[in-house]
Amino acid sequence: MMDINEYSILLIEDDSNDILFVQRAFRQVNATNPIRIVKDGDAAIDYLAGEGKYADRDRYPLPALILLDLKLPRRSGIEILEWMRQQPGIKRIPVVILTSSRESLDIDLSYDLGVNSYLVKPVRFDALAKMIAALDSYWLQINEYPSVLPAG
Amino acid sequence: MMDINEYSILLIEDDSNDILFVQRAFRQVNATNPIRIVKDGDAAIDYLAGEGKYADRDRYPLPALILLDLKLPRRSGIEILEWMRQQPGIKRIPVVILTSSRESLDIDLSYDLGVNSYLVKPVRFDALAKMIAALDSYWLQINEYPSVLPAG
Repeated sequence: MMDINEYSILLIEDDSNDILFVQRAFRQVNATNPIRIVKDGDAAIDYLAGEGKYADRDRYPLPALILLDLKLPRRSGIEILEWMRQQPGIKRIPVVILTSSRESLDIDLSYDLGVNSYLVKPVRFDALAKMIAALDSYWLQINEYPSVLPAG
Repeated sequence: MMDINEYSILLIEDDSNDILFVQRAFRQVNATNPIRIVKDGDAAIDYLAGEGKYADRDRYPLPALILLDLKLPRRSGIEILEWMRQQPGIKRIPVVILTSSRESLDIDLSYDLGVNSYLVKPVRFDALAKMIAALDSYWLQINEYPSVLPAG
């Protein structure tokens, strides 16, 4: 059985500052889970499908948890979520939206498409760090994960 | 906008000791969210559908969050989850499984049916209290909730 500290996270986020802040917040809670990053919607789908430059699953393993921004180049977070939930192998992977949008249309649509949880990124780093600490305590300490099969 | 402390929880659980432990754990973290309890699968569906003795929505409001045991009299947690996710009004309500089963069949099926998260109840109260504290910090402090429409 995989140690929960080995569970990897896929952060789908295009903003370099947000990436640095999220990485720093995870370090502050001593999370040792590998965090892999993709910066646009096409790369996210290639990664999850194990295609193109992400074909090597040893190097680019399927994540236990996905943190998904909504506003992304090429394909939106909503499109990625909708695509994922139709893939038999990977549809069970928990997805947490991490976005600056507090629009109820975005929130409702995300839940309709089967998101596991929806978080609004705070602007200040101390508030983001507190959010990531709660996320770590919940998703990386106590949640039980489904079996996930490689796509394709 | 509703204050998040007013968000109510529906605990669907038949074991009296577990109910007391969960209530006590929420009190320890000073959660003031109302916790309503139903003890079997038929009552859970009546509550969520607003039928029978639960027809008065002022007295029995739709919850923001559902904590769902799997082994229940009359209908299982799996049946309740499957039913809920087909109800247009209430299908978005986040559901966290809280069960003693660590069977991967139960975990995988719950995710296939659209559960938001799956937790295994620890046997010891101190571990359960720690779990409820993490659940409170996550689901009652930072998660954004969808709009929910009354069923029927």
